[in-house]
Amino acid sequence: MSESMKAVMASGAGGPEVLDVVTVPRPTAAPGQVLVRIHAAGINRPDVMQREGNYPPPPGASDILGLEIAGVVEALGEGATRFAIGDRVMALVPSGGYAEFCAVHETNALPVPDGMSMTEAGAFPETYFTVWSNVFQRAALKKGETILLHGGTSGIGTTTILLAKALGCRVIVTCGSDEKCESAKANGADVAINYKTSDFVTEAKKATDGKGPEVVLDMVGGEYMQRNIEAVAIDGRIAQIAFQKPPKADLNMLQLLTKRLTWTGSTLRARPVEMKAELARALEEHVLPLLAKGIAKPVIDSTYSLNDVRQAHARMDSGGHVGKIVLTMIA
Amino acid sequence: MSESMKAVMASGAGGPEVLDVVTVPRPTAAPGQVLVRIHAAGINRPDVMQREGNYPPPPGASDILGLEIAGVVEALGEGATRFAIGDRVMALVPSGGYAEFCAVHETNALPVPDGMSMTEAGAFPETYFTVWSNVFQRAALKKGETILLHGGTSGIGTTTILLAKALGCRVIVTCGSDEKCESAKANGADVAINYKTSDFVTEAKKATDGKGPEVVLDMVGGEYMQRNIEAVAIDGRIAQIAFQKPPKADLNMLQLLTKRLTWTGSTLRARPVEMKAELARALEEHVLPLLAKGIAKPVIDSTYSLNDVRQAHARMDSGGHVGKIVLTMIA
Repeated sequence: MSESMKAVMASGAGGPEVLDVVTVPRPTAAPGQVLVRIHAAGINRPDVMQREGNYPPPPGASDILGLEIAGVVEALGEGATRFAIGDRVMALVPSGGYAEFCAVHETNALPVPDGMSMTEAGAFPETYFTVWSNVFQRAALKKGETILLHGGTSGIGTTTILLAKALGCRVIVTCGSDEKCESAKANGADVAINYKTSDFVTEAKKATDGKGPEVVLDMVGGEYMQRNIEAVAIDGRIAQIAFQKPPKADLNMLQLLTKRLTWTGSTLRARPVEMKAELARALEEHVLPLLAKGIAKPVIDSTYSLNDVRQAHARMDSGGHVGKIVLTMIA
Repeated sequence: MSESMKAVMASGAGGPEVLDVVTVPRPTAAPGQVLVRIHAAGINRPDVMQREGNYPPPPGASDILGLEIAGVVEALGEGATRFAIGDRVMALVPSGGYAEFCAVHETNALPVPDGMSMTEAGAFPETYFTVWSNVFQRAALKKGETILLHGGTSGIGTTTILLAKALGCRVIVTCGSDEKCESAKANGADVAINYKTSDFVTEAKKATDGKGPEVVLDMVGGEYMQRNIEAVAIDGRIAQIAFQKPPKADLNMLQLLTKRLTWTGSTLRARPVEMKAELARALEEHVLPLLAKGIAKPVIDSTYSLNDVRQAHARMDSGGHVGKIVLTMIA
């Protein structure tokens, strides 16, 4: 008989109150996988969407919430050779992060650098994989270029600021209040635009001598799509990572041609294990060395125990957070 | 006093009848440029748009029509060292192709391979530069992948078929008649879809085991934009090179995310000389060796003398051509 563990599932679609801590069988490590005793698991916007019934786990993934974990290797599946039992790892998972144990393919895990806490490591995979893939790979942001990103104090926003600044780029963010603008600047943003009181297209152009930023990172959609096309520079790239507003709009794509733009979109969760493994290798090469020096570590907003998962989601829903909200299973 | 030459300009905006052969001063080679005695100049869709008053030449370019030339180097500008007087060259020009002489930066010219006629060379630059840049660079079509391209018998269409087949790709085209479908297949297309009698999304999926083509090349726009997004494969790329229909549409961009798409657009004419030079080097490396072996040479529909430019444009307007229409200045 398999052992059991605590995990979080949604009993229906709705607010934080649909989240329940339940007892389920402990997973085991399949061939190529490692079983991780979870110390910390980050909370992400897609978890909220899943809770609301709008983002089901991909086929084959469990109904346990959670897309990222940090912990200690508890057991090795057949043929898993990358880590040893007891190693500290952080990993991207398609589901199952809000739990005491999770099995993950060893290629989708990374070693936790010395000097990085388990809480920080649990807040790493989802946003850093997303930002690296979209901003630095797909949108090819380069040293000396400027990025405009929406949601400057979100997990994605803080991560993008840290990585872009660490790699010699200029960062313009939009935020929904003057307080959040100040937080984003304190975190390293060069320019912060309060989108409730200013037009971000005008302000982003002003901040770039009229040229516009070379890259735009968007998770809003709706009417932002046309405005991103207006704002971005000639030869610019727009990376779409979510649609908080509808993905539909009446669009004029003429500038795609005249400004030679590239508009690319992706989600992380649905990618095959091999694609995630490739991305993990890129992060190991380009980002872990920064973290090991204490540069560009995740910004933590707050931590909650697994039992307090409803409060943790309520904090996310409030929009008052700056940086990541993390569940901690082992203090 | 400078010498004169014959050239074609539009006396107004309209049909082929607005085109006049006029006598103008012969251009001279500025520093870094070569002066070319033109033997042949290709006719392209943007020339028609310019004639209709919808595509003005970029700032600093002359009002003489024509975007591509082949001929013999007549004189060298200061510091021009790449070619010698008497060399056969073909070049991309921002304007001025429908004339007896044209000056062009030496980096935007390529040697005409042995075995290639001046007529073929004059039909080369605009479409080959466009196809290489958009299909193989921006949309990154790779060996073994499938491309869907609209307008299978156009200059762009025939060029794309030839290059894609030469480089080991599969080609699906759309055409407006069964006759054109047959022409495209005779030219090498694997699958030809008559868009007037079939739905290209359905047929393109059928022809790719339901997956869709990895790359779509579009110059139509309008409602094709959403249909391209529907048709293209997961991880697919769409290259937009023109808008024969309006660039505006009510678009649902959800699949940009869920299929991890890249939609990129560009025009050739507005690019700075340096970008065109870089592209010329890529063509010299990847495409000239094919041409030198007689592979993937331009398909010529018909030739007209400079004095018959109105008939040449009438042929273009008729839509009955397969491959390129070329003006020949020296028989």
